[in-house]
Amino acid sequence: MAVNGVNGVNGTRSKHDASALKVNQSRLMDAIHSGCKYGAAHRYGDHPTETGMARLSLNDADKQIREWFISTAQSLNCKTSIDQMGNLFAIRPGKNAEAPPIMMGSHLDTQPTGGRYDGILGVNAGLEVLKVLHENNVETEGSIGVVNWTNEEGARFPMMAVASGVWAEAIPLETAWNLEEVSPGEDGHRRTMKQELERIGYLGSQPASYRTTPIACHFELHIEQGPSLETERRKVGVVKGVQAFKWFEITVRGRDTHAGTTPFYARMDSMLCAAKLIVEANAIAKKFGGLATTGILNGQPGSINTMAHTVTFSLDIRHVEDDKLAEIEQACREGFMRISEKESEKGCKVEWKELVNSPAVKFHPDCIAAVEASTKEVCQDLPVTAEDGEMWRYMISGAGHDSCYTNRRCPTSMIFTPTKDGISHNPQEYCSPEDCAIGAQVLLGAVLRYDKLRAE
Amino acid sequence: MAVNGVNGVNGTRSKHDASALKVNQSRLMDAIHSGCKYGAAHRYGDHPTETGMARLSLNDADKQIREWFISTAQSLNCKTSIDQMGNLFAIRPGKNAEAPPIMMGSHLDTQPTGGRYDGILGVNAGLEVLKVLHENNVETEGSIGVVNWTNEEGARFPMMAVASGVWAEAIPLETAWNLEEVSPGEDGHRRTMKQELERIGYLGSQPASYRTTPIACHFELHIEQGPSLETERRKVGVVKGVQAFKWFEITVRGRDTHAGTTPFYARMDSMLCAAKLIVEANAIAKKFGGLATTGILNGQPGSINTMAHTVTFSLDIRHVEDDKLAEIEQACREGFMRISEKESEKGCKVEWKELVNSPAVKFHPDCIAAVEASTKEVCQDLPVTAEDGEMWRYMISGAGHDSCYTNRRCPTSMIFTPTKDGISHNPQEYCSPEDCAIGAQVLLGAVLRYDKLRAE
Ligand SMILES: NC(=O)NCCC(=O)O
Ligand SMILES: NC(=O)NCCC(=O)O
Repeated sequence: MAVNGVNGVNGTRSKHDASALKVNQSRLMDAIHSGCKYGAAHRYGDHPTETGMARLSLNDADKQIREWFISTAQSLNCKTSIDQMGNLFAIRPGKNAEAPPIMMGSHLDTQPTGGRYDGILGVNAGLEVLKVLHENNVETEGSIGVVNWTNEEGARFPMMAVASGVWAEAIPLETAWNLEEVSPGEDGHRRTMKQELERIGYLGSQPASYRTTPIACHFELHIEQGPSLETERRKVGVVKGVQAFKWFEITVRGRDTHAGTTPFYARMDSMLCAAKLIVEANAIAKKFGGLATTGILNGQPGSINTMAHTVTFSLDIRHVEDDKLAEIEQACREGFMRISEKESEKGCKVEWKELVNSPAVKFHPDCIAAVEASTKEVCQDLPVTAEDGEMWRYMISGAGHDSCYTNRRCPTSMIFTPTKDGISHNPQEYCSPEDCAIGAQVLLGAVLRYDKLRAE
Repeated sequence: MAVNGVNGVNGTRSKHDASALKVNQSRLMDAIHSGCKYGAAHRYGDHPTETGMARLSLNDADKQIREWFISTAQSLNCKTSIDQMGNLFAIRPGKNAEAPPIMMGSHLDTQPTGGRYDGILGVNAGLEVLKVLHENNVETEGSIGVVNWTNEEGARFPMMAVASGVWAEAIPLETAWNLEEVSPGEDGHRRTMKQELERIGYLGSQPASYRTTPIACHFELHIEQGPSLETERRKVGVVKGVQAFKWFEITVRGRDTHAGTTPFYARMDSMLCAAKLIVEANAIAKKFGGLATTGILNGQPGSINTMAHTVTFSLDIRHVEDDKLAEIEQACREGFMRISEKESEKGCKVEWKELVNSPAVKFHPDCIAAVEASTKEVCQDLPVTAEDGEMWRYMISGAGHDSCYTNRRCPTSMIFTPTKDGISHNPQEYCSPEDCAIGAQVLLGAVLRYDKLRAE
């Protein structure tokens, strides 16, 4: 099978045979880039597709891409529905339309300086799979659909994958609805998720729950977002799990006094203390083989010649193992206490607020098996570029995904594609058309395999 | 002479004799606190005066206090005028109305979390001196006035004492007019000084220059803003100069990539780099016996799970000696280069922009002598609290003041009063009514001495 140049033409095998159906690479790429007109930003080159994205969850561009998603799905005879978290479900009925559908899910929201693939590839590959089934009049055993989860990034409302979290009943609906955006809007006010769902017309009436909207299994195709596949010149990652991570909002309280007249010994400088804590958290994470990142920091009152009385900053810590992550957190708590009390002149106070707790995830063996079988078939015809000849590998995801939450309520697994220079959450994020199509082909094969499996 | 309880009653000596005229403590305090109704904020106790201030330069409260200043001055038969920087001059004519006036100057703008004394005491003490002259029908040799300088704090428009700087022709008018506020307004836009001068109706037509608005000499009464007078239980600081300081805007450029998938070795984390630079600058300043402060820090794009691609922060460095300040700056430049290039994984870029350069200031001997003579007279009748019996001392100001700029164009000096716990740029900033009155009494004596001196 040649995946490069896949074009939707059927082979000679039965329509139900996964390897007979081919995704259409150029149709897939056209869909990705035409959708990106809603929220395109941060141009970095002359070509029309050389921009990043700023489609923050529930902004105006997100409203537009949601309309595009629904009309695309309806043109494929899908039934669409919207739940109380604005999650969009598009379902193509199968022979047994009563059983829960197999869902291909990801997200259409982006980072403020995001790219054209993170999440977007997964939703579009799902729609492409439905197009292949549609144009070939394939009747699947059960229903098959695509879901666009709300606010996966957690970039605007600071809880990643919050809407699949509500669906999994891991996060209370009210908690999610009341989340405030991280930066105030043009008028200085911070909107809540519920206000923004209402404003853009996507506050659905269907309960956001796996009980009322059950899913048979969840497959998510995603760019790797890191450098491994590219460096090793492989094409597919069979993702077995996701590393553990936690998000915190750290508040440092000091005292606002004069920058020119307050001797060091009399200072309670919350900015200097926060700077020391950020340096400390990074050193600790490095020592334990994990990661630490501070992406947001705000100081009050914000005057050049006055010490900040209060600084808040975000802290994102990660490790592949839950117990190592706990050790990183513990070391940070101890280090922050020591620095704020003993190494910050007159001392500052530190408060911790946990925003996200995402333990390490192990995906379901049935889904991993379906992805692995599909991957092997797709890879066997690819030109060999990897040193050891293997065009795929098992992986653990560094990033969290909606699949972390779906995995709590239905068998789930993920497929990764290469990411140029390992760069993601950046306008220049890139995955080649060939690699996007290979990933979509693996997705198609995994879905059809699972569909067969459940019929047996 | 008993200064505590001074009440405007004349002694038996001539009206022109400085020691015969007394400031009215309760009238002074009433004026201070009644003006503070414009911009009061940050309540910290039950008493009506237990609030701080948020009268940022050229905001609505600043417009109100300006109207109050003008009507107060006019009720004392002063001539008032407004220059192109919104500086307000109120002049009480003397015998020789042609010669430039002696001015008592300070500012009515405050920090975002400011107090009721910084600047406010100086302007009100000046008005109180005029009231004493007015009610006693004192005819001075030359004219005497009060000036309210615009944006002394530099807290909203990031150049301290910018309007006295324009008056001294040390800062070009256009540079000052085009200064943008440090934080955007409610609508997300940053106003310039000129826009705000126009909006509140204080863009005067008179050129802002010492040539068109000459001043004979400038006296400024101010709270110390530091702990020395209080700690040593003295009442007056005879200020001989101001320490050197510089303000910079530092920009750190890195790359926005994913917090969960970007290994440390591939990071260009501008927030982590900025944190290291802030820690470094403080360590350097401490080593050289100076000060360093970062009061403002902004990161872009501002997302928990994305490294900041750009961080800008303010850096305020100070030292009493110019050459030591230069050494601090040089050490910071070298340290920032080393950290950003060699100690920030894949490296970040650092840019420096100088916002303020205020070399060490030495005030004029004639003004210092007038203040000293007045201080000695006022202090001789005070109860002795200082260990060595001296109720006053010479001082170098840790903070910059409009007097730094007036000193370039006319003899200038300053008078300091104690500051509770050494705390300033804080809502709880405090100077007792007795201490305010002592300072105003010293100001009155210094002005009348200088007035006599110039007639001779
Ligand atoms: N896809 C993705 O980047 N999700 C963001 C969640 C995370 O921070 O790991
Ligand atoms: N009075 C006063 O605090 N002025 C601010 C200028 C400085 O930063 O030193």
